[in-house]
Amino acid sequence: MKVHIVHAHPEAKSFNAALTAQARSHLTQQGHEVTVSDLYAMNWQALSGRGNFTTCADPDYFKQQVEEAHATENSGFAPDIQAEIDKLFACDALILQFPLWWFSMPAILKGWVDRVLAYGAVYGAGAWYDNGKFAGKKAMVSLTTGGGASMYGHDGINGNINTLLFPIQHGVLRLTGFDVLEPFICWQPASVSAEVRADYLQAYRDRLDHLFTAEALPFASLHDYDPSTFRLRQAATQNT
Amino acid sequence: MKVHIVHAHPEAKSFNAALTAQARSHLTQQGHEVTVSDLYAMNWQALSGRGNFTTCADPDYFKQQVEEAHATENSGFAPDIQAEIDKLFACDALILQFPLWWFSMPAILKGWVDRVLAYGAVYGAGAWYDNGKFAGKKAMVSLTTGGGASMYGHDGINGNINTLLFPIQHGVLRLTGFDVLEPFICWQPASVSAEVRADYLQAYRDRLDHLFTAEALPFASLHDYDPSTFRLRQAATQNT
Repeated sequence: MKVHIVHAHPEAKSFNAALTAQARSHLTQQGHEVTVSDLYAMNWQALSGRGNFTTCADPDYFKQQVEEAHATENSGFAPDIQAEIDKLFACDALILQFPLWWFSMPAILKGWVDRVLAYGAVYGAGAWYDNGKFAGKKAMVSLTTGGGASMYGHDGINGNINTLLFPIQHGVLRLTGFDVLEPFICWQPASVSAEVRADYLQAYRDRLDHLFTAEALPFASLHDYDPSTFRLRQAATQNT
Repeated sequence: MKVHIVHAHPEAKSFNAALTAQARSHLTQQGHEVTVSDLYAMNWQALSGRGNFTTCADPDYFKQQVEEAHATENSGFAPDIQAEIDKLFACDALILQFPLWWFSMPAILKGWVDRVLAYGAVYGAGAWYDNGKFAGKKAMVSLTTGGGASMYGHDGINGNINTLLFPIQHGVLRLTGFDVLEPFICWQPASVSAEVRADYLQAYRDRLDHLFTAEALPFASLHDYDPSTFRLRQAATQNT
């Protein structure tokens, strides 16, 4: 199978880099084909704007979705964006590897999301959630934190990690159709012993062994929503 | 009072721009002093890295918090970052103005958060939440959406807007000490009539009139948490 890893950390000797290197070698060893977009190494352009396109639908008013729809029809994406779109369609599984910065993705990775997940090419016109273009593909978030696990529990000071990841796991990954797997989280690798870090790497190998067999996180189906309001239908809310 | 607006939209004729222009003129008219960081106009650098600093604590391994602590002690922030830090300490209220892109801030604004909210200078060593350096200041998120309000309700397909904003309102703003006001949300301004957009602008003026008097959103206090685990203390969870 083909696995695409989008890696977002500025330090090549970081634990995030160790995780990505581990994933690349372990998955390759298991017979998978792995591509890695190391965003810092690529000097990835994070800012969305006219630079996303080689075409132009409206020179007087920049509306990204309009330009994205136009670019989709006219092969008008900048080469760096088109290359990532191609990798997404080619892969069977996507891994986003990043340190949790300010309770979300680093800006460089948000810039990958903003620019690559283009209206028309990647989503839109009914292609979202269950009907998303990446339906059938797997996606997993793999992240590191600065704080310990107890700070990110249901009663933790920083808020529940599942709440923090909802905009990414539901909003970014599920909306585009992926089956989203349980996140792989290494709690404060900078503050633990070398033994614990080695355990994290072993646990990651174990998780990767089940990348294509693990059950996906449960989300409501597109069909549970009223298509005029996009609110849950009565039947779907009866038990809530 | 002093109000600092951080504005993140690539189109100068956008509704986001209209909201920021409105805030600037209305607040100025009311006697406030307004500064605006128009991130796209400033060509804001979104990527965190060694470029954040004029100093260097460790040339062999880049760990952002270590460099931030060092820069704090040695006046080592890049001029663009230091200028924003200064504006934050000078202001009495902060407004983040942005379109909701992929259920979060545009990358350029996330890059402002990642780079400006530096360990040492802005938070850390006990300075967080109630004890945050910006305690007593107000903060408000002002955003626009592509989808309608019903998609962002408690039973909406895109998830509750409060959940989506939690990483920003709690994680970014409350953690640094701000009193966080109810967000100001303009639902799909690109899809409504000119009248509705005019109503939004009027509603924004009304909200701005109460910037310094409105009640802040409720968050648990730092003192509700056990300082060894950062989980809610027993007493604080009794009623939950």
